[in-house]
Amino acid sequence: MFCATRRAREPVRQMVCRRVVTSITICAWWRRCGYGRLHEHRTAMAGPVRILITRQIQAQAIDYIREELPEAELHVHPDEHASPSRREVETWLERGLDALVCVIGDTVDETLLAHDVQRRLRVISTMSVGYNHIDVGACRRRGIVVGHTPDVLTETTADLAVGLLIATARRFREALQAVDKPGGWTSSWSPTWLCGVDVHHKTVGIIGLGRIGVAVARRLHHGFGCRILYHGSREKPEVAAELGPASFRPVLDDLLAESDFVIPLCPLTEKTRNLIHAANLRRMKKTAILINVSRGEVIDQDAVCDALERGWLTAFGTDVTVPEPLPTNHRLLSVPGVTVLPHIGSATGETRLAMARICIENLVAGVKGKSLPHPVPLHS
Amino acid sequence: MFCATRRAREPVRQMVCRRVVTSITICAWWRRCGYGRLHEHRTAMAGPVRILITRQIQAQAIDYIREELPEAELHVHPDEHASPSRREVETWLERGLDALVCVIGDTVDETLLAHDVQRRLRVISTMSVGYNHIDVGACRRRGIVVGHTPDVLTETTADLAVGLLIATARRFREALQAVDKPGGWTSSWSPTWLCGVDVHHKTVGIIGLGRIGVAVARRLHHGFGCRILYHGSREKPEVAAELGPASFRPVLDDLLAESDFVIPLCPLTEKTRNLIHAANLRRMKKTAILINVSRGEVIDQDAVCDALERGWLTAFGTDVTVPEPLPTNHRLLSVPGVTVLPHIGSATGETRLAMARICIENLVAGVKGKSLPHPVPLHS
Repeated sequence: MFCATRRAREPVRQMVCRRVVTSITICAWWRRCGYGRLHEHRTAMAGPVRILITRQIQAQAIDYIREELPEAELHVHPDEHASPSRREVETWLERGLDALVCVIGDTVDETLLAHDVQRRLRVISTMSVGYNHIDVGACRRRGIVVGHTPDVLTETTADLAVGLLIATARRFREALQAVDKPGGWTSSWSPTWLCGVDVHHKTVGIIGLGRIGVAVARRLHHGFGCRILYHGSREKPEVAAELGPASFRPVLDDLLAESDFVIPLCPLTEKTRNLIHAANLRRMKKTAILINVSRGEVIDQDAVCDALERGWLTAFGTDVTVPEPLPTNHRLLSVPGVTVLPHIGSATGETRLAMARICIENLVAGVKGKSLPHPVPLHS
Repeated sequence: MFCATRRAREPVRQMVCRRVVTSITICAWWRRCGYGRLHEHRTAMAGPVRILITRQIQAQAIDYIREELPEAELHVHPDEHASPSRREVETWLERGLDALVCVIGDTVDETLLAHDVQRRLRVISTMSVGYNHIDVGACRRRGIVVGHTPDVLTETTADLAVGLLIATARRFREALQAVDKPGGWTSSWSPTWLCGVDVHHKTVGIIGLGRIGVAVARRLHHGFGCRILYHGSREKPEVAAELGPASFRPVLDDLLAESDFVIPLCPLTEKTRNLIHAANLRRMKKTAILINVSRGEVIDQDAVCDALERGWLTAFGTDVTVPEPLPTNHRLLSVPGVTVLPHIGSATGETRLAMARICIENLVAGVKGKSLPHPVPLHS
């Protein structure tokens, strides 16, 4: 086997085999040692590179792999709407896999990685910004590099966030159901039917003024005349300046109490899990609307349902849930004022193609032993 | 009867009775003649003022009428979702009605007005900006003043237009159906499922850069970085300047050919009826999306269905249809890419209350013989 062969060589090289190549420095050092590029060496020793892609992706992205890695053995899971089962991925790893392309919902943890008995896996490339489905620490310990697709989906997700905000405030879900259901739309126009709330000139509280936070704030401030408040670990006068300026609220409670619309746009971490819990919901205005396009786990869904039923919150619009997909008999779907989209934040042809491209660039770089153009941050 | 009594008086007064009071000038003249305010005179002669409101409106609006016209006999149609039948309104008119508050969908034509055999009706106040459901010429000939509710719904309608644009581009209708239908949402995330098109930085063509047109353009340009084109009877450099500047297209074909999103925001007139017909649809990009929040009649719905089925158009989002309500078996609801909202452009609590207030101010002014704060334009 590949690793066994490598392990028979001198100790320095053995170390590289174990940790695999994680930076261009090691690659350069490797070349200086006269071994040529690591991937060439590896490929020569263990047959073609084997790649598993857990979902069907754009044909252009597949073409790009074929171009860059003409010899690779490429396995694309045939189901458009489902990844292979965990057992199937385990089997792939046991048989030997060099690279794995996955999506949100494909859990990659220590137990799964243990099935890589040949220690052959060297790159995991997720087609998402978020990577909390991947145990990055476990990957690092096994010398596997992890890439993701930041930046490209910022504007597309911000479009969706604003669309979902308007749809929730203006009761699109009920409106669309009324149009489709016999007897649902009975009058050409009614002064009091399906009245929602205005979006323009309201106060919007953004928790986490990162890339997507700024993109959402820009739309709502410059387009709709909204006043922007934000909360986060630190004040960001440099980005807030162009947003009104947006007002920093160092205490989350203050943001919650003042906002007509509350939008968490923070990554999911242990600190942000269940950030919007029962007590925080009570701090919000009764007329407030909560919008989530980040991760479902940031919000305590049961507490939101309680708050809506008790009239402590007016509406909740979300593109992310726990679990995903949400069972159709889930409580969230029967509580009035809830709008659920099926995680389509980045779902446009343009953006998904850009994501696939970056994802494959990460994959190819990882397989070639180059540093990834978009590795997950080092501190993760 | 009231009119008969009035007609027995001197000729000048008879003229006023026939034409009713349409301006403050006549009112002032009337008072100078020593007759006191017309409504007082009239009320004294024919019992209490009789008002019919065809829909339930906000309680605050009713309170305002009671305050201003404490003696009025007020009839509010009890059904929230339907106006009285035409026959019922005819009967009301035959019995004698001084004022009529109506909504879009309540057709007021010459034939209906002929049932006002006592020539008693003096004001019609519609709770809408549009008034093409009212034969304004016939009203004028009968000396009936007509009021509407412009301005207050501009921002609310623009919010909805942008929400509907994003919802259509990002396939919210399909997405919401998938979430609600067992087996509809099967995968946590899929690279190619429900992919729509981006809104940000696209080219938007607005036909009719009036109040709502400017409000929509402002949102899309300043919020989403869109490039704005507009078409209309004349160039409007003064309003277009702040929109990029928006580029005028004197020839409609040019706007249609260049735009990613086409939004007619013109009033319904004989010139704009079926403005978006089959030939104009062929001039649009195949990737274009058409959004309508003006009047259903501005668009040839059948031609839109054909265009969608043939792939000449990508999607159509509309808040207005022909007819309204749309039957659930209507072709429009079965063609892929169509999103229909049930005419909720101005449906927010804040705006509907503001509309009711203006509508009632028109009503009260009309009943009191004062000029209306918001009469329909003279040229109509």
